[in-house]
Amino acid sequence: MRILLVGAGGVGDAFAKIIARRSFYEHVVVSDYDLGRAERTIASIATRHGAETAARFTAAQIDASDPEVVARVAREHSVTHVMNAVEPKFVQSIFAGALAAGADYLDMAMSLSEPHPTEPHTETGIKLGDDQFEQAGDWETSGRLALVGMGVEPGLSDVFARYASDHLFSEIDELGTRDGANLVVRDEAGNEIFAPSFSIWTTIEECLNPPVIFEKDRGWFTTAPFSEPEVFDFPEGIGPVECVNVEHEEVLLMPRWLDAKRVTFKYGLGEEFIGVLRTLHLLGLDSVNPVRVRTADGPAMVAPRDVVAASLPDPATIGPRMTGKTCAGVWVTGLGTDGAPREVYLYHVSDNEWTMAEYDAQCVVWQTALNPAIALELLATGVWAGTGVLGPEAFDAKPYLDLMAAPEPAGYGQPWGLDERTPAAAS
Amino acid sequence: MRILLVGAGGVGDAFAKIIARRSFYEHVVVSDYDLGRAERTIASIATRHGAETAARFTAAQIDASDPEVVARVAREHSVTHVMNAVEPKFVQSIFAGALAAGADYLDMAMSLSEPHPTEPHTETGIKLGDDQFEQAGDWETSGRLALVGMGVEPGLSDVFARYASDHLFSEIDELGTRDGANLVVRDEAGNEIFAPSFSIWTTIEECLNPPVIFEKDRGWFTTAPFSEPEVFDFPEGIGPVECVNVEHEEVLLMPRWLDAKRVTFKYGLGEEFIGVLRTLHLLGLDSVNPVRVRTADGPAMVAPRDVVAASLPDPATIGPRMTGKTCAGVWVTGLGTDGAPREVYLYHVSDNEWTMAEYDAQCVVWQTALNPAIALELLATGVWAGTGVLGPEAFDAKPYLDLMAAPEPAGYGQPWGLDERTPAAAS
Repeated sequence: MRILLVGAGGVGDAFAKIIARRSFYEHVVVSDYDLGRAERTIASIATRHGAETAARFTAAQIDASDPEVVARVAREHSVTHVMNAVEPKFVQSIFAGALAAGADYLDMAMSLSEPHPTEPHTETGIKLGDDQFEQAGDWETSGRLALVGMGVEPGLSDVFARYASDHLFSEIDELGTRDGANLVVRDEAGNEIFAPSFSIWTTIEECLNPPVIFEKDRGWFTTAPFSEPEVFDFPEGIGPVECVNVEHEEVLLMPRWLDAKRVTFKYGLGEEFIGVLRTLHLLGLDSVNPVRVRTADGPAMVAPRDVVAASLPDPATIGPRMTGKTCAGVWVTGLGTDGAPREVYLYHVSDNEWTMAEYDAQCVVWQTALNPAIALELLATGVWAGTGVLGPEAFDAKPYLDLMAAPEPAGYGQPWGLDERTPAAAS
Repeated sequence: MRILLVGAGGVGDAFAKIIARRSFYEHVVVSDYDLGRAERTIASIATRHGAETAARFTAAQIDASDPEVVARVAREHSVTHVMNAVEPKFVQSIFAGALAAGADYLDMAMSLSEPHPTEPHTETGIKLGDDQFEQAGDWETSGRLALVGMGVEPGLSDVFARYASDHLFSEIDELGTRDGANLVVRDEAGNEIFAPSFSIWTTIEECLNPPVIFEKDRGWFTTAPFSEPEVFDFPEGIGPVECVNVEHEEVLLMPRWLDAKRVTFKYGLGEEFIGVLRTLHLLGLDSVNPVRVRTADGPAMVAPRDVVAASLPDPATIGPRMTGKTCAGVWVTGLGTDGAPREVYLYHVSDNEWTMAEYDAQCVVWQTALNPAIALELLATGVWAGTGVLGPEAFDAKPYLDLMAAPEPAGYGQPWGLDERTPAAAS
């Protein structure tokens, strides 16, 4: 396996650092629009693991927005797998470039949605991933695999859902992905500051788009942003966090392979963050349409959302000033294999102090990057195999969770949790 | 009297429209950085009042940031009074330009403050107007008058305070300027939108700077932004509005001429607006320090606060879509002239439907522009006279309020209110 990693930002950098400790692949090309960023990732691998390990990595410059450039770089390095670790707006170009180069493809976020033109808060328009699934025939014909949504959420959440479906439930009422954290970022003086741990650009995109929900009787439909607030109790000391519906890939992926009456995604944004996003929307500062602004060099046309992103600390740099844990998981309700009501929360927790110490990566991007590493290892060893455009739940979950939990060096040393909860009286 | 109006934005435009109906002056030069804007103001006067009235106005281009340009334009037109109607960051250059040209000067906001370098929330640094008052000697020596803070707040509020001091109270506990409104702006579809009725740039400046308070025993001191929230009941149907301390000129002006134990300014921002300002501050979007942002034409350095302003509707354009009233006034507590506890609220209310119909100007900018017109008329007729740097409370309030209240054409047809309130048990 020869991997082309596209993007050496927070997640790409963490991915490279994770697989530097594995041996399932032959070579990795770390590419970025900014070559220096790719080189810094490899330099940090050299520092920690030595020149021999670093020799398995090559830096390259790439323009992820151009499918032909992606294909050319992939061909030049005889790449077998293209790993997309950049913003979702580049999904289509990298997806096309990988197929053109005859490589398999993985991403951690799917092609973007477009709201319904007249009924955005009740009906779906173009859904997340629609563009990719429309091209599934081309991938099947070529005998190539596009494994889409293979981060932590989507990704590990979909693996949990498949595991619950295969091993824990005979009938599922709801597959509810629930994400929450108790992360705090401080400035040099020790005061708490506002510093999202993931790209604010992407967070705005997913939180302000109409959330999508799946119901077996109704299909996919949407609601207004921040709908159905719910306090969810997260494990390992994180505790209760206010969660709201958010547009997310799981809702589009799980119903394609798994049988459930309802599929939802709720993000534990917390009240402060929800307030911030509401205000950005109220003021039009979430907009990607440029406005005319005066500058010292004359007028410029800038997208307000880009200015919001530029005003906040870079999520890749806040790791050393952050404390706390982040939790990703799926809350499943229904009937157990014995036919009795059952309710479980399957989850994985990532602790920032540990990821910083072990990988010099903050916990949210590290947890995202962990999962495509595991998936690639299963593909490299032939445990997972397939063609076409497939989600993580199309594959057997058991070997995945076993490889994740097994101690190093056999596995990734990342145990996961199963929280057995008391089912509500009537389901 | 020959007036140079600097700025034909919302307030400048309304000022020109107000004095188009008066005859106390000989000529007005309407100047703006954008000559077309000055010409549009005069064109609208021609449409409403005819060519003869419009002939008393001349348009000119000006760079308000350059004192020499201001002086040159003033000399070219033999100007006797320079009327500053632009953002407060231009106060110093226009103030200097007027003195250089040998003209008197009026403004509606004073030179800007700088927070205390180490104790911003308890001690004052450079205060509003400090820079102007330091130059008072030059104005006195030249025999010229700078009448500073002569809008509605500061301005009419200071006139009310002087009136209360001269005619209603023997001893004053607090001179508390209180500003509130029930304005609502709607989009074309009739939905309420977020659209501040005054420059967001200036609003951020005054609301996020540490509020200043005066106490006779302590002098001037500061607090944290949004301190001492209080629900104040505004008259004429506006009702209760949440008010907080805000940095404002009245607190710096009134104690120089009037005797009061405490001087405060509270702005009826309402909870939503306070939340918006807090969020802008939390995210650094109130900042005037440029950040690097990508644009279609390459990277640009833009000030986040300018992007916020550019993303919101121009306050000068929202008049037709706005309904409601705005109230400016001073709440005075102490002992009446009979020595008994007394509490009054002296106020003026401006109704947007009326100002739009009568002047084609939205009510907040119209109410601001009304007051320098009255002051100039009192200076033109010799009822008010003085030299040096003086606030509105340095002049007799009675003729001002009489001219304001008298029906047109003798006066401005703007009655003011005196709300007698029940004093608290112990003052």
